Amino acid sequence: MRIDILTLFPEMFSSLEQAILGKAKAKGLVDIYLHNFQEMSDNKQKHADDYPYGGESAGMLLLPQPIFDTIDKIQKETPDLKKRVILLDPTAQVFNQQKAEEFVKEEQLIFICGRYEGVDERVRFLVSDEVSIGDYVLTGGELAAMVIIDAVMRLFPGVLGNERSVKCDSYSSGLLEEPQYTRPKEFRGLKVPEVLLSGDHEKIRKWRLKESLRKTCQRRPKMLEKLALTAEMKKMLAEIFHTKRI
Amino acid sequence: MRIDILTLFPEMFSSLEQAILGKAKAKGLVDIYLHNFQEMSDNKQKHADDYPYGGESAGMLLLPQPIFDTIDKIQKETPDLKKRVILLDPTAQVFNQQKAEEFVKEEQLIFICGRYEGVDERVRFLVSDEVSIGDYVLTGGELAAMVIIDAVMRLFPGVLGNERSVKCDSYSSGLLEEPQYTRPKEFRGLKVPEVLLSGDHEKIRKWRLKESLRKTCQRRPKMLEKLALTAEMKKMLAEIFHTKRI
Repeated sequence: MRIDILTLFPEMFSSLEQAILGKAKAKGLVDIYLHNFQEMSDNKQKHADDYPYGGESAGMLLLPQPIFDTIDKIQKETPDLKKRVILLDPTAQVFNQQKAEEFVKEEQLIFICGRYEGVDERVRFLVSDEVSIGDYVLTGGELAAMVIIDAVMRLFPGVLGNERSVKCDSYSSGLLEEPQYTRPKEFRGLKVPEVLLSGDHEKIRKWRLKESLRKTCQRRPKMLEKLALTAEMKKMLAEIFHTKRI
Repeated sequence: MRIDILTLFPEMFSSLEQAILGKAKAKGLVDIYLHNFQEMSDNKQKHADDYPYGGESAGMLLLPQPIFDTIDKIQKETPDLKKRVILLDPTAQVFNQQKAEEFVKEEQLIFICGRYEGVDERVRFLVSDEVSIGDYVLTGGELAAMVIIDAVMRLFPGVLGNERSVKCDSYSSGLLEEPQYTRPKEFRGLKVPEVLLSGDHEKIRKWRLKESLRKTCQRRPKMLEKLALTAEMKKMLAEIFHTKRI
């Protein structure tokens, strides 16, 4: 996969090198190109932003020209790649795991990172996807792009240490993961549940499934509606509801 | 405000220096302390993680001891600060703008960044808030912590270039921002709406309000339910619905 990032702060992306992206690059799975679109500005002062039309607004907007010209340049370099052009925008549709699984299938992802008050509306003509990472406001699109890249990269086979991590993690199985414990057996008076130390695989499987159902009930009850419940799950859920304290 | 971050990858946080956090630090508004809790590990190999009890799981879990001891150390250094201890967890309640406005009032925020399969369940005894930044899975809590810090920092008075940016941005006013345009008036055949060039402040105000309502209708219709609509807004909404094409 090729990833292109349009940003005024290319140095921010050094964080990704230390994370999963570093691994993905080392394995030759991804190439990253950072484009400081300020350098493409055709005005004398090399501004990337200007005041909005209509007055009263104190904030600055990103100019269309540097962004359009950068996208043109990328398009000329990679005419044959199947691509998505993604604008990070806090008002857009919220990114989720399904979207990550969609993006990982593409040949090229191009991210446009907004800053200041936002981008000139005409930039939207360039994009295939407008994405927000959540219902909160950030100072720019850079962290949002990094979050999406991280979520997508880890879905590449071989990027994570083991395949179980992807398959079994929250959101993929339809249930949240059960509580997990490691060494020591007792720490500051807090004990690991005995069943996990029993060596009885069937008991452990049942405990895990039940605790996984319990956590999903408490934290993401809507996930259960989408799940085809087995008879065993139904019985466990009945027990959970029966003993539930609020 | 004091921010403490428990992480195995302290270098990742260099990104924040280039962003809003750099400004907030320069203004003396915030102090950041990075703690690599691996250094607190009391086992010979200085491991921060181990296999989960119960078998079958290939992933690794963060040990409770290094995290408990790091929190103890921080607590001893800052006994009097009003603090929140935040665990980043993809299954937790999703962070939003309201939570950012809550966190900005605290004296100290302590972030525990998970990695690998997750953390030993007992770590939850230490935390006041479990937070996710969205319904997707990341390789670790570091990017999520950075996102939260960025969203919180920009709410400090004086951190952003102007106060308007905070007050008028999406989610704070109850409506999404209208489309905005900057130079030039025409770019590749795409024109700025004439009203914005008219100099007629009342016309511009009306256009902005209507386009703001239109965008909110299209992208976040639920936001309108929470809003006390004026007669003017109701009239505009009727016009929007009347001419809406899907």
